[in-house]
Amino acid sequence: MSVDLHRLPACQAALSLENDQLRVEQYAKALLARIAARNPEVHAWAYIDHEFVLNQARTLDKIPVEKRGPLHGIPVAIKDIALTKDMPTRYNSDIYRGTTASSVDAACVATLRASGALLLGKTHTTEFAATTEGGPCVNPHNAKHTPGGSSSGSAAAVADFQAPLALGTQTGGSVVRPASYTGIYGFKPTWGAISREGLAQYSITCDTAGFFARDIDDFKLLAKAFDLEDIPSKKFQLLGAKIGFLRTHVWDLAPAGPGLQGAWVKAKDLLTKHGANVEEIEWPDADFEKLTKWHWAIMNGEGRSAFYGHYQLDKKSLASLIVSHVENKDNISRVNFLEALDGSACLRPIWDSFSTQYDAIITPSVPDIAPEGLQFTGDARFCQAWSLLHAPCLNLPGFAGGKGLPIGLTLVAGRFHDRQMLETGKIIGDIFEKEGGFDSKL
Amino acid sequence: MSVDLHRLPACQAALSLENDQLRVEQYAKALLARIAARNPEVHAWAYIDHEFVLNQARTLDKIPVEKRGPLHGIPVAIKDIALTKDMPTRYNSDIYRGTTASSVDAACVATLRASGALLLGKTHTTEFAATTEGGPCVNPHNAKHTPGGSSSGSAAAVADFQAPLALGTQTGGSVVRPASYTGIYGFKPTWGAISREGLAQYSITCDTAGFFARDIDDFKLLAKAFDLEDIPSKKFQLLGAKIGFLRTHVWDLAPAGPGLQGAWVKAKDLLTKHGANVEEIEWPDADFEKLTKWHWAIMNGEGRSAFYGHYQLDKKSLASLIVSHVENKDNISRVNFLEALDGSACLRPIWDSFSTQYDAIITPSVPDIAPEGLQFTGDARFCQAWSLLHAPCLNLPGFAGGKGLPIGLTLVAGRFHDRQMLETGKIIGDIFEKEGGFDSKL
Repeated sequence: MSVDLHRLPACQAALSLENDQLRVEQYAKALLARIAARNPEVHAWAYIDHEFVLNQARTLDKIPVEKRGPLHGIPVAIKDIALTKDMPTRYNSDIYRGTTASSVDAACVATLRASGALLLGKTHTTEFAATTEGGPCVNPHNAKHTPGGSSSGSAAAVADFQAPLALGTQTGGSVVRPASYTGIYGFKPTWGAISREGLAQYSITCDTAGFFARDIDDFKLLAKAFDLEDIPSKKFQLLGAKIGFLRTHVWDLAPAGPGLQGAWVKAKDLLTKHGANVEEIEWPDADFEKLTKWHWAIMNGEGRSAFYGHYQLDKKSLASLIVSHVENKDNISRVNFLEALDGSACLRPIWDSFSTQYDAIITPSVPDIAPEGLQFTGDARFCQAWSLLHAPCLNLPGFAGGKGLPIGLTLVAGRFHDRQMLETGKIIGDIFEKEGGFDSKL
Repeated sequence: MSVDLHRLPACQAALSLENDQLRVEQYAKALLARIAARNPEVHAWAYIDHEFVLNQARTLDKIPVEKRGPLHGIPVAIKDIALTKDMPTRYNSDIYRGTTASSVDAACVATLRASGALLLGKTHTTEFAATTEGGPCVNPHNAKHTPGGSSSGSAAAVADFQAPLALGTQTGGSVVRPASYTGIYGFKPTWGAISREGLAQYSITCDTAGFFARDIDDFKLLAKAFDLEDIPSKKFQLLGAKIGFLRTHVWDLAPAGPGLQGAWVKAKDLLTKHGANVEEIEWPDADFEKLTKWHWAIMNGEGRSAFYGHYQLDKKSLASLIVSHVENKDNISRVNFLEALDGSACLRPIWDSFSTQYDAIITPSVPDIAPEGLQFTGDARFCQAWSLLHAPCLNLPGFAGGKGLPIGLTLVAGRFHDRQMLETGKIIGDIFEKEGGFDSKL
């Protein structure tokens, strides 16, 4: 078993960890060995201290079996925009280059820690999780391509078997997009279901903590640890399920590339073959196409106050996008901003209601495979609607997109249907993974 | 001048500080002397280090005149739920009793610091700014009465001339209510106009940074420092102004006590005497009365995730209100919670539009003077609507409420009319202060 310990998904490791069949230290050592071997190529980590990890592991091993939390000994990588009280938080910003550990944990880090998770280290992010300028982290499947962003290191670490689970955040598409690019599951819960205290703030309306894993059952462990509660709904069964495929207006806008087009056709064929009733659907009859414009207005309006303090501290060190928000270079008026806030708020219950007409809804994650080069972390427009609608969504990997790179599709639901979405995603995701055609070399 | 230095409002001190007529150290010493004399009775401060204050002051004094910020040398008290990188942040929680300084400043603290403010110390709050259990801070006008909460120490420090300006936060009524109880101005800006990163989180939908001062012109300094931008509107003139007096449904619910009833009549008389056209108005024809119920549903739904990490760390140390949110003891379903979120979102543009029909709208701040005793920080129901509607509001002091205690009324506006509200408040507030009848003994 020890040879492939680093390949275990969290849910499998948990079964062995809970009764000491597997010691946390042993598991940690396997992952640290993988990290030592692979990170010089992948560059997933902004901060990692092997001795600190092993000390945590030994402390966890001493906890009596009956006192262990639901994530006992599960290693979790933390995006470097979440405050941690024993590791520095640097936001990939020159302003915080020399910053030391915080006095407090971000709320979600506190929950991970209280649940017994092993905090592995901090992963690379784009600056304040706001820009689309990538590097140094690469796509583990092809180092010439971006892993996506802003949760670059979290996605790459999980895809590359350097961590079974990772914390990310999504404001536009920063969980779903890197998950799609790196061929793993990415789960953005309903907005507000998990506290965002202690995470870098970009857009208060859109910022959402999310997670990466290679097995959906790992998210079920997290759903338990974070006490996620659903609005009751009926159990998903694939046979006879009514599954909507929603291209959205972004399909033509992006536009959809060959990777997405191939995955789209294949997904419909697979689900049909397995007995589902698949149909192409359209946005409900309301202003959903405006979400793209409104997302941008909100990024500007909320980014303006969010980054104002950093701007005052050191304007010169900030990315031009961030400066442009603070200076409102796009000239988005307060009236435009309120229209975007209120307009998207009106659409949320419409989406929730619409979503109940289907047993599952599938929509694109990204226009195509990960772009070549590390400069640009990719197009987030397919994901923005779900961030703004506060809807839970889940990247399902499995499709081959070309150049040895994966591509995924998004399962999306109404607010507070997170657990049901995970159950549904497990069934559909298994099919996509087994029959979608992506063959990982990792 | 030096005898009464501690009584200067920030706007007056700023004129002398900007060109060294007044040295920051001299000003700081005057306030520290006031604090030393009065704090043993008032208990406004959770943390204050005189030497640290003087060191900051000396550093500020060395800044060349041409490089000074808009708040150069202005002492500001900071509510002890805002992260500060040179002072501990303890949230009035046993969990954080031994916590040291943070690695980062809350965004609003960063702006204060970058603008040249002198950070005086941390002020008492109720636990995580969430409970209504007060103490040890008292009302400076009558130590048997609460100063209100949760921004207890910030309001008391300003009212008692221990600081010219203080940072508070409002989720229900935690800026306006203590301002009314202590007889000072309290300014809650439009939600989102100032970043809430680094402030304790209770309700992401309602939490708003706000300020206390004894002169509205002090808020104008802050509006400049925080780069607040209004939707353009016409200049307020009292003569012939159409001023709506909105009791709201809370008037009968609370119900309005003699202090409020007296202030209400007096305010209408004064404004009429000064040439305004005053009329009693009603809520617009929509679900505004539901805001009281919805606010509670949102406190529960958002408090549940906000306090979950603290609950896991040490449930026993938490106030019962906080535990009840996490455990959802009120049994507020996710459907109820979404109804509250979406319902209040729908009302925001309706309020904005309605507010433009009047040159000013006055509404109660509190049902009566500060309650006797320190156990209960008072009824926030008059304020909750404005927190939930994201509307800027401003407590205008000046009325005598009985027992030597003041009472104020609230000026409220549509979103992003903060600066106009301050201009209007200056004109109306001057009348209330001069003719409202409250005679402070401080």
